[in-house]
Parts: sequence; C-alpha cells; structure tokens
Amino acid sequence: MTAVEERGISQAVIGRLPRYYRYLGDLKSEGVERISSQELSRIMNVTASQIRQDFNNFGGFGQQGYGYNTSYLYEEIGKILGLNKQHDMILIGAGNLGQALVNYMNLKNRGFSFKGAFDVNPSLFDKRIGNVPIYPMDRMPSYISENHIDIAVLTVPKAAAIEITGVLAKTPIKAIWNFAHVDLKVPDRIQVESVHLQDSLMKLSYNIRRHEEGK
Amino acid sequence: MTAVEERGISQAVIGRLPRYYRYLGDLKSEGVERISSQELSRIMNVTASQIRQDFNNFGGFGQQGYGYNTSYLYEEIGKILGLNKQHDMILIGAGNLGQALVNYMNLKNRGFSFKGAFDVNPSLFDKRIGNVPIYPMDRMPSYISENHIDIAVLTVPKAAAIEITGVLAKTPIKAIWNFAHVDLKVPDRIQVESVHLQDSLMKLSYNIRRHEEGK
Repeated sequence: MTAVEERGISQAVIGRLPRYYRYLGDLKSEGVERISSQELSRIMNVTASQIRQDFNNFGGFGQQGYGYNTSYLYEEIGKILGLNKQHDMILIGAGNLGQALVNYMNLKNRGFSFKGAFDVNPSLFDKRIGNVPIYPMDRMPSYISENHIDIAVLTVPKAAAIEITGVLAKTPIKAIWNFAHVDLKVPDRIQVESVHLQDSLMKLSYNIRRHEEGK
Repeated sequence: MTAVEERGISQAVIGRLPRYYRYLGDLKSEGVERISSQELSRIMNVTASQIRQDFNNFGGFGQQGYGYNTSYLYEEIGKILGLNKQHDMILIGAGNLGQALVNYMNLKNRGFSFKGAFDVNPSLFDKRIGNVPIYPMDRMPSYISENHIDIAVLTVPKAAAIEITGVLAKTPIKAIWNFAHVDLKVPDRIQVESVHLQDSLMKLSYNIRRHEEGK
C-alpha cells in the first residue's frame, strides 16, 4: 500500500477505521480467528457492503470465502492508522482537563505518550502529572525541536489556543489535538483533530428536545 | 417550528448546528448585528449554499437582502439545540477524566449542570468535586428519579459502562454522554452521544502518516 493508492480516501472512511480497529481488537482478545463481513456487519451494526467498500480502499485485506483473518486485519488497520509507530506528545495547558488527559492516555495508549507539559502558571513548574514534568510555556518551542515531539495537545482557553497555534506553526510539530472551543488555522503540514466537548453536549441536548417533542 | 417539520433533518445537519451557534455567539459578543450568508461562509470556511440549505431545514431564519440578524439567529439556534432549558447531569465514575469534566463543564456551561457523582470506591464518598457530592453507585437509580436528572455522563471502563447502561435503561434518564471506549446499546428513548478520545487520536495518527508518506 502506497500513499498514492490511498489518495482518494475520504475522511469519512478514515473516521470509521478506529471503530473497526476497536471491534477487531475485541474479537482478537476473545480468541476469534476469522470473521466474515456479514458477522462483522451484525456486531458493528453497519452493512456488510459498507465494510467491503471501506476495506476495498486499502486493497480489501484478502477476504476469502470463509472471511477475514482477525489478527491480520487488526494489524493491517493498525499500520494504516500509524499505530505501529510511537507518537510523542506534549500537553499545553496543565489544568484539570489537561491533567486528566495525561493520566488517562498514558495509562491506556502505549503508542501515544506524553513527554512534557507546559503552562504559564509558575506554581505548577515544580509539579508533575504522574511522571510528566510541567515546564514554563516559553520553553515549549525548543522542547518540541529537541525531543522530536509529534503531537501538541491543546487544553487552554480559546484566545490562548489561537496564540499558541501561531507559535506551534513555527515549530516542527506534526499535529495538534485540540480541546479548545475554537477552529484552528494551521499550515497544511500540521494535522488538526478537534474534540469539541461542548458541541457534543449540544448535539445531545438537541436529540433530547427532538425526542420529547416527537412523543 | 414543530417536531414534525424537523423530522427529515439528518444528524449531519444537527452536527453542524453547534458550530453555527459558536460562531454566532462570537459575532454577537463582537457587536456584529447583522451578517450575510456570504460573510458567515467566509469566516466559517463552508459554502454560503451549505449555510442556506442548513438553515432552510428550520424555516430559513428570515434572511433578507441585508442578511441575518445575529442575535435572533443565535437565540433561535440555541432554542433548536434545547439550550433554553436547564439540563441536570450526573457523573458516573469519579476518576481523573470524570472529575475534570465536572470542573470544566460546571464552569463553562450554565445550561448543563452536574448535580451529583457516583463511584464504587468508598474512599471517595466523603469527598466532593468542586461543589458536587460523590455518592455510592447503588444510590444512582433512585437519585436519577428523585432529582429529575436528564443526562448521565459515563467515565468508567468499558465493561462497567455496558453494565451501568443496563441499569440506566431502567431509570427515567433521557441521555447518556459516553466517554467509555465502547458503543452502547440503549432503548430508543435514551439518546447517546459518544466521545471516543482514542478514536480521535487514531484519526490524527492516520493523517500524520498519510502526510509523511505523501511528501
């Protein structure tokens, strides 16, 4: 699989890959060695045709009459997702949410590891989040270069997020995982994925109202 | 606007409403009284035709030659999102992530308010998260009924999330905001919105790999 072959793949397909990866990981740990697209369709509640179309974007993963090899499919999707590589991360903004993410992610994801945290609050500089040291914000650009950091995790207020994104654009950072309630503008070489918690809650609120009025 | 008129609206449209709401809130606080779909298109980086199509699902919000009334549009989208009502929430799982969400959300969102937290760890029962008391898990079902709780926020491990969802299905809870790394099965009357943090990070990892190989 080369990048050229992947060129036409939509972000919608990409967005579904982690879910396949999750279900295949579960099947693998349950000892299921092979699975048909029909069976995968049933447990994931998507059509078998959707699954085959999604997988065909990556060469189809060699389904035969008796289905996919679970371990092989899991490993291959993992490689497509870049999970065979270690990603070093920094936290920018060591408040409640940031600290929780460091504790949560360093526990759960061996491939994604927080190396340092940065904040503007001097009272935090002698503290750690688990094993992760907290440094002054102005050390952030040099730290990224020296430690080959891939991903900056932004858990700062909106205005600070915009300002810091400008600083990050001048570093070799590869990606921003954004928790600030704002859409970031970055150069094409920097990937951005936003988790807008408030947007998610508003969608839930909409669906509550819709359901109640539809009664 | 009745629920009947809204029936055909896709979750994709609904998913865009919070972003409109966010931008309109910003414009409002900057003192912008009217805005054309062209101008809104430019700042939001979507087509003006998309904006008009989305808004037409809700009757169009009376755009005239000189554009939309910013405050009116903000209020109307807020009503559609059910933000004119107070939503009472409980936290289930008072670990790092859960505690951070309580602190973060009770600060930022006046319409969404955590009233209580529940955990299985007895050492937490005499503690609070900000002003929010932590109770034993077995009090959760009666607490929901007695306090008219709308939304349960799930920040527990996968296996616990599945078990607790079964308990929640027997209460009058209206919605689950799910942070567990699993897809929940619920009765139709319960709305679910999942924040899969690991899926989001995997998507970022994919885009980093794609970009590097595409160089």
